[in-house]
Amino acid sequence: MKDTIQLALLGVGTVGSGVVQVLKENERLLTERIGRKVAIKTVLVRDAAKKRPLLEGIHVTTDFDTIAADPDIDIVVEVMGGLHPAREYMLRALEAGKHVVTANKDVLAEYGQDVFGCAEKYGVDFQFEASVGGGIPIIAPLKHSLTANRITEIMGIVNGTTNYMLTKMMEEGCSYDTVLKEAQEKGYAEADPTADVEGLDAARKAAILASIAFNTRVHFSDVSVEGISKITPADIDYAKDLGYVIKLLAIGKDMGDSGIEVQVHPAFLPKSHPLSAVNGVYNAIFVRGNAIGEAMFYGQGAGSLPTASAVVADIVEVARNIGNDNCGKLLCTCYEKKPIRPLDEVESCYYIRLLVDDKPGVLGAIATTFGKAGVSLKSVIQTRRNIAEHAEIVAITHRVEHRLVRESLEALIGLPVVDEIRSVIRVESEQA
Amino acid sequence: MKDTIQLALLGVGTVGSGVVQVLKENERLLTERIGRKVAIKTVLVRDAAKKRPLLEGIHVTTDFDTIAADPDIDIVVEVMGGLHPAREYMLRALEAGKHVVTANKDVLAEYGQDVFGCAEKYGVDFQFEASVGGGIPIIAPLKHSLTANRITEIMGIVNGTTNYMLTKMMEEGCSYDTVLKEAQEKGYAEADPTADVEGLDAARKAAILASIAFNTRVHFSDVSVEGISKITPADIDYAKDLGYVIKLLAIGKDMGDSGIEVQVHPAFLPKSHPLSAVNGVYNAIFVRGNAIGEAMFYGQGAGSLPTASAVVADIVEVARNIGNDNCGKLLCTCYEKKPIRPLDEVESCYYIRLLVDDKPGVLGAIATTFGKAGVSLKSVIQTRRNIAEHAEIVAITHRVEHRLVRESLEALIGLPVVDEIRSVIRVESEQA
Repeated sequence: MKDTIQLALLGVGTVGSGVVQVLKENERLLTERIGRKVAIKTVLVRDAAKKRPLLEGIHVTTDFDTIAADPDIDIVVEVMGGLHPAREYMLRALEAGKHVVTANKDVLAEYGQDVFGCAEKYGVDFQFEASVGGGIPIIAPLKHSLTANRITEIMGIVNGTTNYMLTKMMEEGCSYDTVLKEAQEKGYAEADPTADVEGLDAARKAAILASIAFNTRVHFSDVSVEGISKITPADIDYAKDLGYVIKLLAIGKDMGDSGIEVQVHPAFLPKSHPLSAVNGVYNAIFVRGNAIGEAMFYGQGAGSLPTASAVVADIVEVARNIGNDNCGKLLCTCYEKKPIRPLDEVESCYYIRLLVDDKPGVLGAIATTFGKAGVSLKSVIQTRRNIAEHAEIVAITHRVEHRLVRESLEALIGLPVVDEIRSVIRVESEQA
Repeated sequence: MKDTIQLALLGVGTVGSGVVQVLKENERLLTERIGRKVAIKTVLVRDAAKKRPLLEGIHVTTDFDTIAADPDIDIVVEVMGGLHPAREYMLRALEAGKHVVTANKDVLAEYGQDVFGCAEKYGVDFQFEASVGGGIPIIAPLKHSLTANRITEIMGIVNGTTNYMLTKMMEEGCSYDTVLKEAQEKGYAEADPTADVEGLDAARKAAILASIAFNTRVHFSDVSVEGISKITPADIDYAKDLGYVIKLLAIGKDMGDSGIEVQVHPAFLPKSHPLSAVNGVYNAIFVRGNAIGEAMFYGQGAGSLPTASAVVADIVEVARNIGNDNCGKLLCTCYEKKPIRPLDEVESCYYIRLLVDDKPGVLGAIATTFGKAGVSLKSVIQTRRNIAEHAEIVAITHRVEHRLVRESLEALIGLPVVDEIRSVIRVESEQA
């Protein structure tokens, strides 16, 4: 048995440097917990000439081939991110009989089947706890601690950027543009914020979570996605008045025979829901199962050390498996093929805000139009928010199919008294 | 390889019937997730004559010997609770080469070392997720998902009865006695509520959590314990006014060279703390680690199906290990021997409420007495709460050793103007 498990680290950005730091700082206890040492032998970088005090004493290369060909390397730790060449490097590492640990949500959500298949073929481990929720343990709990359950619902705040922005908007009443600029200045949002604010990052995580929770393959393109860029301070105010917060949610539901629903969208969430108190850059994943009832996993969804916490835990797991000669077990858990329900068939409650003419009979006309379209209203309020000769109407619907809401909005916009459909936001976890 | 993993269930009370139900209801998906069937072969009961429709088709016995001697039985699932004969049955099962899954906090906190030693000796699995936090995954996360961290703090709401009571007191302002009676009527508290309200149940869980989190043996008797029976509506009111909630907390802290602290006591907790929103019969465990930062695990801490969720997950884990020929690994994780810090040396902030004479100079005399005893005050307020010729003084201290608080209280009660020390409650997670 080898004295030391040797690692190759692909990438030494935010997550990679966290991994180096955690391995160094906690070296003694990691050795205790694994039963032998782990050490980074090689780091793959783009620019080998760059000075990196953190990597002192570690071999640095720009050539992945030397890693794939190095028989000393047991585990390849992919923390470079992005689809390519991360996917190719992982596949080649697996083919070379090396175990892979990754934080890469993009590759998982797009090519999950390939990498699992490859790991299975070569009998090696493939671990990806850090791909969802940063440091928060959620993949391992779903694959182990919650196995007694049929999971019926998984609902997560899985994007720190948008949660920071929505929290700021709730707390300070500022506009989307103002808070985006501030998030960019603080480094919480990228210069091109699209992947975060339009929900694409969350959608990749939703695909991964739903695949594991429901034991069926969910691809990134299966997820219906809507971002937060249309959320206004007015919506935030109405949400508060009505006892809700607004959160960007990644939602998966197993509807039994009618298939599974996987979506990312902003939603009104009752203040009593455990996720409603998850603020700022924190993330949390809420799970409903037929034995456990409700459970929630909370922590930092990003950042160097929190994400490294998950990556290094995966390294420990693989190292233990190597020690126990127990690698390549429990890889792909998609035992079933469940259909994805089309968005039009998905039922939800809705908050709908309209700008209308301020004259008698308008509210009745609107309620009638909803009714004709098959949309049943829980409440409808007419307000006057400093709008000359106009009023706003806020309607909350009962649970209704998306298609009917879509059709009702088409009918509403055809009414002469309706000037604008200002917001359509789903209301989640509402008592029916 | 055997087609079916056979179980013996010891006890068929609240948790045991949950286990039967979950195994039955989720049979198909469990088979999928394990790769073969699990089935209960035998159930140990006290009264074999009692009709139990749930156990139809399952062999029932009152004789543990037949279970220990049955070579068909792979896993013994102990859900009878209590110290004896549960401990003896578990040891005998392990000695007979059977894997053991248990929900028994009492045996773990008192005889952990024995059972782990025995499992190790016979090379079998010993799993106990359900012993802390009911269905909430916390043992597996500590042993697996958080292994990259030096855990510095673990803080849990781990007793549903007291959390239900304190939540009621916070929400409705009622007295301890009223709410205890109500909890007993609803079945949330036992006829003899001592183990819950005096913090003994939480202390057992604190010992288990601290042992796993800090990799050192913590025995039930190492935990300093205080219950909630002295909490009054007045304390609740002050807590609210000052921006806190009151929770019964199980706390473990690793103070490095000065050892570890393990305590159970009621505490003021800032409303901004993630645990402060954990209400009613819900439980949660908050963990601080040097990589992950803060994390929290939330769910139902008791009840038939939630607890069965954890028990059955353990059964799945053992069944998978049997399939992989990988049993008896990662048993006792107490690799170190860390000293337990005596309560007198433990530092905390304190809320102290005194009944004093209502006359000038009293506040100064009290502040001076605290100062002489080495207790530095963060704030001190004199109030008049409908008390003829008396006033209440509420002091919040800075972080101070327990010994100094004890001594300051002895000095205070000697002052002629101090009539009564009404409450002394720790303030946790306060910014220093």
